[in-house]
Amino acid sequence: MNRRQFNVGLLTTAGAIATRSQRLLRQSPLRVNGARLNQHLAALAEFGKNPQGGVSRVAYSEADRQGREYVMGLMRAAKLDVSIDAAGNLIGRRPAANNDDSLLPILFGSHIDSVPEGGNYDGDVGSLGAIEVAQTLFENKVALRHPVEVVIFQNEEGGLVGSEAMIGALTEKELDLTNRSGKTARDGIKFIGGDVSKLSTVRREKGSIAAYLELHIEQGGTLEAEHIDIGVVEGIVGINWWDVTIEGFANHAGTTAMNNRQDALLAAARFIEAVNRVVTSVPGRQVGTVGRIQALPGAPNVIPGKVICSLELRDLDAAKIKMLYQKIRAAADQIAQSSKVKFDFKELNTNIPAPTDPRLRAIIDSSAKSLGLSTRQMPSGAGHDAQDMARIGPVGMIFIPSIGGISHSPKEFSRPQDIENGANVLLGAVMKVDQG
Amino acid sequence: MNRRQFNVGLLTTAGAIATRSQRLLRQSPLRVNGARLNQHLAALAEFGKNPQGGVSRVAYSEADRQGREYVMGLMRAAKLDVSIDAAGNLIGRRPAANNDDSLLPILFGSHIDSVPEGGNYDGDVGSLGAIEVAQTLFENKVALRHPVEVVIFQNEEGGLVGSEAMIGALTEKELDLTNRSGKTARDGIKFIGGDVSKLSTVRREKGSIAAYLELHIEQGGTLEAEHIDIGVVEGIVGINWWDVTIEGFANHAGTTAMNNRQDALLAAARFIEAVNRVVTSVPGRQVGTVGRIQALPGAPNVIPGKVICSLELRDLDAAKIKMLYQKIRAAADQIAQSSKVKFDFKELNTNIPAPTDPRLRAIIDSSAKSLGLSTRQMPSGAGHDAQDMARIGPVGMIFIPSIGGISHSPKEFSRPQDIENGANVLLGAVMKVDQG
Repeated sequence: MNRRQFNVGLLTTAGAIATRSQRLLRQSPLRVNGARLNQHLAALAEFGKNPQGGVSRVAYSEADRQGREYVMGLMRAAKLDVSIDAAGNLIGRRPAANNDDSLLPILFGSHIDSVPEGGNYDGDVGSLGAIEVAQTLFENKVALRHPVEVVIFQNEEGGLVGSEAMIGALTEKELDLTNRSGKTARDGIKFIGGDVSKLSTVRREKGSIAAYLELHIEQGGTLEAEHIDIGVVEGIVGINWWDVTIEGFANHAGTTAMNNRQDALLAAARFIEAVNRVVTSVPGRQVGTVGRIQALPGAPNVIPGKVICSLELRDLDAAKIKMLYQKIRAAADQIAQSSKVKFDFKELNTNIPAPTDPRLRAIIDSSAKSLGLSTRQMPSGAGHDAQDMARIGPVGMIFIPSIGGISHSPKEFSRPQDIENGANVLLGAVMKVDQG
Repeated sequence: MNRRQFNVGLLTTAGAIATRSQRLLRQSPLRVNGARLNQHLAALAEFGKNPQGGVSRVAYSEADRQGREYVMGLMRAAKLDVSIDAAGNLIGRRPAANNDDSLLPILFGSHIDSVPEGGNYDGDVGSLGAIEVAQTLFENKVALRHPVEVVIFQNEEGGLVGSEAMIGALTEKELDLTNRSGKTARDGIKFIGGDVSKLSTVRREKGSIAAYLELHIEQGGTLEAEHIDIGVVEGIVGINWWDVTIEGFANHAGTTAMNNRQDALLAAARFIEAVNRVVTSVPGRQVGTVGRIQALPGAPNVIPGKVICSLELRDLDAAKIKMLYQKIRAAADQIAQSSKVKFDFKELNTNIPAPTDPRLRAIIDSSAKSLGLSTRQMPSGAGHDAQDMARIGPVGMIFIPSIGGISHSPKEFSRPQDIENGANVLLGAVMKVDQG
């Protein structure tokens, strides 16, 4: 409300600005309560808070469970009809005006689980921003033609588990993966109130949603560096994950001559360097990361006999990921020979590149511009539940700046004003989608 | 006994052999019961046994505590007077003939703790070999001029903790180190029956022992490759350990461009390669190992912000270790610059090179030859409690072959006959030291 009054003030003082403000007022964009939204973000940050900053609210942990309870409270306060689906996703439903069920639902939301030692914005901004939009719609008695569903997906960081379930793509293998909570997805879903035996009830068919919109922090540094308010996402990069196992031979570190070793960790070191070399050997925005490593038996006086590490490749072009992977496999073959070890690659998860919907991109861009915000089109280097939802309906994503481009870190930060801006763009987009 | 009868048999059939056998009989070397010794080794292997072979009997684990109970039983059966000293070492004392306490004690023994996923011979052969020698002395009513002490040192694999205490060199810092049992040495010593508040009672002064003898598997492949029965150890290499911490910056693996990363694991990979390159860049038998690594936060989709790894260097020449370390530090400085990370080196433990006693080397060699066994002089690439004991008195070490040179591995193996040979050489050496 303050902002609207401020615009009205401008109207009376400066002709050029007044013309623009008049236009803004004519469209009368509804606004969220930015202060409340930022307060809710601060409150959510308490669940899984780390002494050194940020949170570890890994999916299926106690912190995750408690954070979800808090979020359900916010949803109820926004007068949403809250339920936990069989996959453990939180759904907050708002019926269409006059309970008319003839139109498809508009979905929007994000996730509140974090990586270990993560930040307070990745997922949280989009989740609480979505609830704030619902509360604003309620408080302003906005009648929408479509039903609305706020969706807080579970375990986004562990491989988009919640949205995979919603599109019917969650495999038994994925259900058996253990994350840093120590639980498998199967056990974790039960822990957070889902029911794996009824996963089929969660599945939504292609063409069953009007749209899925997701507000999110950029997680990169482009918007901040270019002083742009809002990123309109062109598409989400494909992400491929592998577990790489390197088998050497464990032996005594004092009695085994350097030329008689089959050191799995030395081979892993060569592999990690090779991943970096291959990924940076061609132009483009592709990235490759080894983020997890375990050397066995793991004692300073034993030559490691086995190493297990992760490999992750991302790009907007699936063919490029395939090409890079083939080059990495070839490099691994060479290392295997020279280091007398064996490599084994196990594909864990593949998220194919997902373009966003052109109409939703235009709506987001127009919603931002009607608020006087600058925009740019950009890819998302991070994966999001939106990429799963793109397989059953049109999706759109709204990015706000990440200071320093830092994410998955306690130092992750987005300015309160940018958060408010993002939620206002989401609110405007939802209302425009409803009209269209 | 069977073997002596066999020699007598030979005496009656072949002139040339008879002459040698007559000489052996004249010296009448006493023999241990090899079958019993190998049975005891098989029984000890049950404590901490791994399904995939070998043992994890890490010091201060429940398996270690139970294995020690079993060993104390064997010591009592050998009529040794058993006690646990304040450092947690097991001591089995045999008085001198007529309880004459005027001569210094002859010590011999080893350790029964293992590395995680270790084998059944490292330490065990020398420990149970020592007890078998004591039992043979008892059964044959051998009167010795010196008192004898069988010593089973605790936590050899975690940095010679038991023998450090015995020579008064155990530091508060070492007492606070946590090993793979999850306990600090301080808590572990209490767990196995010691009393850290009385560590001063354990200390033995320089010149307070007649000798310390240790039978051990070679842990390298030299004796087997050269078909030699017994290694007479010239000295034990120096061992230096460091904890290396690499600080980069944790960030999102999808949104952080390759050239904007401060990837601590990529820097660690370059460091591990540099250690290998430096150590193999000069001639000699020095070794360098990175055996333990931890990358934080340790998720596939997060660029590692911090890596902690071990560094271990070994050589018979302390100056060479220093030179290699300086080269490694210089390489780390270069990696820090090029990878935008910081390196920190924390020295954990230093064992200086320890030569064995020339007289004891001659006695071991003569004891082996009087049994018809072939010998060679050789260094020990592995650390042993003997290197601590060398600081308070003369030490000697007896090596037997390790098949394939494999140690600190479930595949560690020494032949029953070689184990029996080693115990017989130890028995002969103890008796010769007693006479000298």
